[in-house]
Amino acid sequence: MSEIIELARRARVASYALAEASRATKDAALRAMAAALRANTDAIVAANAKDVAAAREAGTPESTVDRLALDPARVDGMAAGLEQLAGLNDPVGEVVRGYTLPNGLELRQVRVPFGVVGIIYEARPNVTADAAGICLKSGNAVLLRGSSSAAASNVAIVAVLRDAAEASGLPADVVQGVPTDRAAVKELMQARGLVDVLIPRGGAGLIQTVVSESTVPVIETGVGNCHVYIDADADLDLGLEILLNSKVQRPSVCNAAESLLVHAAVADEFLARALPALAHAGVTVHGDPTVVAASKHLGGADGAAATADAAPVVANAAPVVAADEDDFGTEYNSLDLSAAVVGSLEDAVQHIRRYSSGHTDAIVTRSQAAARRFTQAVDSAAVVVNASTRFTDGGEYGFGAEIGISTQKLHARGPMGLPEMTSTKYVVTGEGQLRT
Amino acid sequence: MSEIIELARRARVASYALAEASRATKDAALRAMAAALRANTDAIVAANAKDVAAAREAGTPESTVDRLALDPARVDGMAAGLEQLAGLNDPVGEVVRGYTLPNGLELRQVRVPFGVVGIIYEARPNVTADAAGICLKSGNAVLLRGSSSAAASNVAIVAVLRDAAEASGLPADVVQGVPTDRAAVKELMQARGLVDVLIPRGGAGLIQTVVSESTVPVIETGVGNCHVYIDADADLDLGLEILLNSKVQRPSVCNAAESLLVHAAVADEFLARALPALAHAGVTVHGDPTVVAASKHLGGADGAAATADAAPVVANAAPVVAADEDDFGTEYNSLDLSAAVVGSLEDAVQHIRRYSSGHTDAIVTRSQAAARRFTQAVDSAAVVVNASTRFTDGGEYGFGAEIGISTQKLHARGPMGLPEMTSTKYVVTGEGQLRT
Repeated sequence: MSEIIELARRARVASYALAEASRATKDAALRAMAAALRANTDAIVAANAKDVAAAREAGTPESTVDRLALDPARVDGMAAGLEQLAGLNDPVGEVVRGYTLPNGLELRQVRVPFGVVGIIYEARPNVTADAAGICLKSGNAVLLRGSSSAAASNVAIVAVLRDAAEASGLPADVVQGVPTDRAAVKELMQARGLVDVLIPRGGAGLIQTVVSESTVPVIETGVGNCHVYIDADADLDLGLEILLNSKVQRPSVCNAAESLLVHAAVADEFLARALPALAHAGVTVHGDPTVVAASKHLGGADGAAATADAAPVVANAAPVVAADEDDFGTEYNSLDLSAAVVGSLEDAVQHIRRYSSGHTDAIVTRSQAAARRFTQAVDSAAVVVNASTRFTDGGEYGFGAEIGISTQKLHARGPMGLPEMTSTKYVVTGEGQLRT
Repeated sequence: MSEIIELARRARVASYALAEASRATKDAALRAMAAALRANTDAIVAANAKDVAAAREAGTPESTVDRLALDPARVDGMAAGLEQLAGLNDPVGEVVRGYTLPNGLELRQVRVPFGVVGIIYEARPNVTADAAGICLKSGNAVLLRGSSSAAASNVAIVAVLRDAAEASGLPADVVQGVPTDRAAVKELMQARGLVDVLIPRGGAGLIQTVVSESTVPVIETGVGNCHVYIDADADLDLGLEILLNSKVQRPSVCNAAESLLVHAAVADEFLARALPALAHAGVTVHGDPTVVAASKHLGGADGAAATADAAPVVANAAPVVAADEDDFGTEYNSLDLSAAVVGSLEDAVQHIRRYSSGHTDAIVTRSQAAARRFTQAVDSAAVVVNASTRFTDGGEYGFGAEIGISTQKLHARGPMGLPEMTSTKYVVTGEGQLRT
């Protein structure tokens, strides 16, 4: 038997005990895990230092090294996250619906854990504690397959979490690490029946691999090509604030805006203000011909923000460049923004249907009809009226915890909290009912 | 572009119009489709006669031919099913949850159609109308891939349904048939992004193929290795009635019982009554050594139902044979039943965890503690106390329609009605909220 199959079988056995654990037991384990992380901060930081040194030696970009690095404050943050989970309601046992059938059978649909969950994730080692905690609280045994670049950190964290779980009366195997070699992840993706759900967390490449190679059911997370559409009836001040917040408040994350659409009726006025503001914020705009023309107009002699040179729009600021077809489908995760002028709300909808990743798309408008039409026609996990795209997040939605943001339509869509980490079963109670 | 990709793209375009159609429009289309089926009964029955003749020529078993055959009454049944759908609530637009966030954002989670659904199914042509109706009512464009043995019937039915949909103001492409060749089904399974969900309906082989080869998300349906466990505290009269109803009322379906477990404390008494009753009903029992020994005892001189011969249990009735390991994992769909004696409720739970397909498992007991323990520990789509396994069904559960019974944990578990044919999206409405 391969190591992965063996790990998965142990997870299954542990999952039976965990599924029946009371909320009190699970919360005590989460608090014990938090305390153990704090108590073992030195060992965890020391293990992490090896990963950081290896990453630097391999020439890893410093931004990636920063995501990998742990210090006592970050370990404390992991512990605090586990304590926060202990304060949340237990989704297991919630009655989703229930009624009595005409024949007297009492039917209840009740939340139950999935059983065994696999998480495949990239560099950040804090995901190890977050994912373990969310799975434990929702009653799922977890197989954690982190990045090889964080291997030493993850081994140290998993060891601490397992000991704490066991000391709280749960099987240690409710949390297990998975070897980081490629063969192991392939086996994990083929462990249908042993692993109930796989959740990839990371870049588009990782998610694509898991989605196409896994026979285990997958919940796809986190690719966000998010749009902000400035309607003909938009309050343009509001539109500019929402656009800037959506784009620059944290450009590296999946709910940041990647594309601007502007209704032709307000394009001149809006772009005359937005392009300089974006440029000041360091955003490179990849514009369609209309947007590029508007930027040249601004850059020229009669532009409001005119400078001596034709381009860039603003001296010492980011330029407007011509978009190619690929730009509109690109999730930049950087200070880049594609931009196009559309002839109508319907054209905006068509554009979004064609290019959106179905994560979050926003309209800015004062028109009730336009808002209604946009929210009906745009089929994304989150459709936003007059607010920043950046709110699509389990914490912002009040879920208290988030395992990721689903961009698929099956099972869960949008931010996934604890209830989304469960399945249901029907419990049917009778007194001898027979089918006729 | 391949034909399947072209069909899927047309389905996507049609799905936009269908997603926005009012309940009134959809219900009118369902009623028009029902009327059109009735009006075209002769043409449908004539097309079906070709399929039936070809099946007989190919030496198809008469039971399969019966499932394939349509007559005016069966066509009328399809029409009545569509009319019944028109009377059900529209799941689209239902607000699943909604509240106002601390920052004033109004958040609503709303049911929306999946978009494009693919159904892959076997012989029975009435599934064509049922599946088309359920998809239409839930706002999904459907690609119907039926069996090649029902090709002429399905082409005729799809043509009638498309014409009626179009006459009602919906795009004809809300319902499309898919060629029955193997290349087409392979392409359908790879059409990720174009097809939102695939639902295989049929035998275990079909489902296994789709589950392992599809990159499109799949909802697995309908494999049922269902158990009836007779507890130490069971009312044995009730137990026998429930066992017989679960096994013989309709043995070919997925919610029929396939395995009997009896607590050792009541095994002698229960088997002494159950084995003759099962034999009389024509059920072949595949017993573990204890069950086989009990049957020999019955068959011997001092058995209550003793006969002149040592076996079978009852003269001219079905025998008790020794089970091999495979029997306990087998979904017979016939008048066969595996049977074992277990030492305890926990042993029954262990047995069910090992062998159950997670469809429906029942306990017969008067003990509240045993019922509670069984319903907690057994993780199946339906866990039943003191009633027949045969109730796991969308109609029996009051859903009004059923596309299948999900035996997976993701998205939907158990009978799937109209709400299970939808996804959700978050609609978030603000007045300029920005993320800080």
